[in-house]
Amino acid sequence: MWTSWWRTKHRIFDVVKYFVRNSGTVEDTPIVSLAECRRFVIDCMMAVGTPKHNAERLADNMVEADYRGLHGHGINRIEMFLSEVQHGSCDAAASPEVLNESAATAWVEGNNGLGPVVGSFCMNLAIDKAKNLGVGLVACKGSNHFGIGTTYVIQALKKDLVGLCFSNTSPVVAPTRARCPAIGTNPLSVAAPGMAEDNFVLDMATSVVSRGKIEMRRKMNVPVPLGWADPLTGALRPLGSTEENSSYKGYGLAICIEILCGILAGGHYGPYIHPVFTTETEANLAQCFVAIDPCFFAPGFQERLTDLTTILRNLEPSDPRKPVQVAGDTQRVHMKMIEENGGIKYSAEQLKSCENLAKSLDVKPLRPIKQ
Amino acid sequence: MWTSWWRTKHRIFDVVKYFVRNSGTVEDTPIVSLAECRRFVIDCMMAVGTPKHNAERLADNMVEADYRGLHGHGINRIEMFLSEVQHGSCDAAASPEVLNESAATAWVEGNNGLGPVVGSFCMNLAIDKAKNLGVGLVACKGSNHFGIGTTYVIQALKKDLVGLCFSNTSPVVAPTRARCPAIGTNPLSVAAPGMAEDNFVLDMATSVVSRGKIEMRRKMNVPVPLGWADPLTGALRPLGSTEENSSYKGYGLAICIEILCGILAGGHYGPYIHPVFTTETEANLAQCFVAIDPCFFAPGFQERLTDLTTILRNLEPSDPRKPVQVAGDTQRVHMKMIEENGGIKYSAEQLKSCENLAKSLDVKPLRPIKQ
Repeated sequence: MWTSWWRTKHRIFDVVKYFVRNSGTVEDTPIVSLAECRRFVIDCMMAVGTPKHNAERLADNMVEADYRGLHGHGINRIEMFLSEVQHGSCDAAASPEVLNESAATAWVEGNNGLGPVVGSFCMNLAIDKAKNLGVGLVACKGSNHFGIGTTYVIQALKKDLVGLCFSNTSPVVAPTRARCPAIGTNPLSVAAPGMAEDNFVLDMATSVVSRGKIEMRRKMNVPVPLGWADPLTGALRPLGSTEENSSYKGYGLAICIEILCGILAGGHYGPYIHPVFTTETEANLAQCFVAIDPCFFAPGFQERLTDLTTILRNLEPSDPRKPVQVAGDTQRVHMKMIEENGGIKYSAEQLKSCENLAKSLDVKPLRPIKQ
Repeated sequence: MWTSWWRTKHRIFDVVKYFVRNSGTVEDTPIVSLAECRRFVIDCMMAVGTPKHNAERLADNMVEADYRGLHGHGINRIEMFLSEVQHGSCDAAASPEVLNESAATAWVEGNNGLGPVVGSFCMNLAIDKAKNLGVGLVACKGSNHFGIGTTYVIQALKKDLVGLCFSNTSPVVAPTRARCPAIGTNPLSVAAPGMAEDNFVLDMATSVVSRGKIEMRRKMNVPVPLGWADPLTGALRPLGSTEENSSYKGYGLAICIEILCGILAGGHYGPYIHPVFTTETEANLAQCFVAIDPCFFAPGFQERLTDLTTILRNLEPSDPRKPVQVAGDTQRVHMKMIEENGGIKYSAEQLKSCENLAKSLDVKPLRPIKQ
């Protein structure tokens, strides 16, 4: 079934070129500092009525995404968030509130606020509880798209904790054996502290690939591998891809995440979640945030983790040109590049889009530090 | 790459016949009641010096496995446990102890006891903590192979809690891009209570398939699909199978589980764990058990879960002969069959093996209720 894919592998280069154009690694494009990028997002969001402290949470998430090379969730998503706020499907001024709380758990109402506002609130709660009791688990409903989960698990990492977070999403994945989509890509993020900031950072959808990867290929008119999505219905496949290769596991994981999100917190779940990019109805997404303090367990957590990741990276690779990696390595390389460059090299299209946005919202344009 | 697999698909029938012979669905074989099966396991384990209460925990796990149709972990594994106890690599008389504890967490030393003894102790602790505070997380080291994780998450289910458990295992999986095995199949189990016992029960390795499935095919001399294991090294592949199909996700999940087990609890981890079926050294496996009480979150958990699983089962299937299932459905069908039959139909080989065991250990033989 991979035949059609490999036949067109030369087209991969187009995809790579597209990605490079859109990810800011082109040599002759201007560089925007992370601080300027953050300033611009905050100004745009404030221009449509978002309180500053809420706009800052969204900006933190978007800038983190671009910094780590997760461009699908970077500044290119600002128009989606602006549109949701302008259409009133998301309340940018809302603050989350605790509905029920114990010393180790909290149930939170997001009040239809911005996802990153709800997410950072919940993870901070989980962190406080973990610092006191070793574990904190916070589940929320009434949330919206929260960007990259990495941002929240890194909140935990900064306090030397293990962080986990989960979200349900709009139904674009067909369960094993089903013809049409009924569940989300339901991503999970996990971060754990190693020595000298050699951290483990995993951010993954429970489908074979995320929606963004499929969209990128469709935009480029490059065939999508059959293993990724059903060519007839467009439904994404759960991790595992085929029943023979245990896609019931990816499907099962997606339901586990739904259990910790929509089922536990009482938000929307599965097919009740509105379609992607809808602004007519509230999303009422549900999310779950967990922090664990290794100090409550065996001493030497960071040493053991760094020992393990070092062993893994030094394993003999099947192909000498492709070394074995650990979750987070690709992001680390990207962050180093951004630091060396002094900022992000956005594509000309992205800069043009920001220029138009600045005009229409009457905010100070995005100013590169270097042309 | 599936060509060789499909070319030999006629051999699948041999595998199915083998499975049926070994799983007790053959019509003319004797039936053994679950109680008799449990009695036999307890007697055998006590004959090698296991205290009764510890032998009971192991028997509970094995009988549960055969009851649910997870025969790879049923009574056919008794010789492995007996061998470990007889060789002294596992201390059947040991009791676990708490090394550090908070109201929501515990760090446990398994003292090289039987895996099911350590596992049931840890999950009971997690349950007590969850009943008080909404969540309980218990990590242990010094454990051994704990059979099916399902047994422990069902302990939580019986108290109307969500249960999760994780274990590291001997290194048989090659991380993405690596030539040789370095990590375990690191399984996870999750159970959540639905209405009228329509529960969600997921039990899965983070590799494409478990070691048992590969072994079964090798025994039958049936080709193992390339997607499951490397034909040169025999290394199992992580869920996702290929890098193109995101095997880094299955690999990443296996490391997440190692983080919650060996790294958190300070047991062995990754390549330090001894090879499968070794009895010369202690396993020092690490496991993690989590219980969550839905009462601390949105009312109506069971109703929502049953609503979701009902929706999923009623989705239009791609192939009308293969209805969409939910994790636990196959086990439920098997348990119903066992109940209708009044017990388990073991294969002639299995019964012969038990007869020999009874003689060598001088215990009362396994007595079928019906010949």
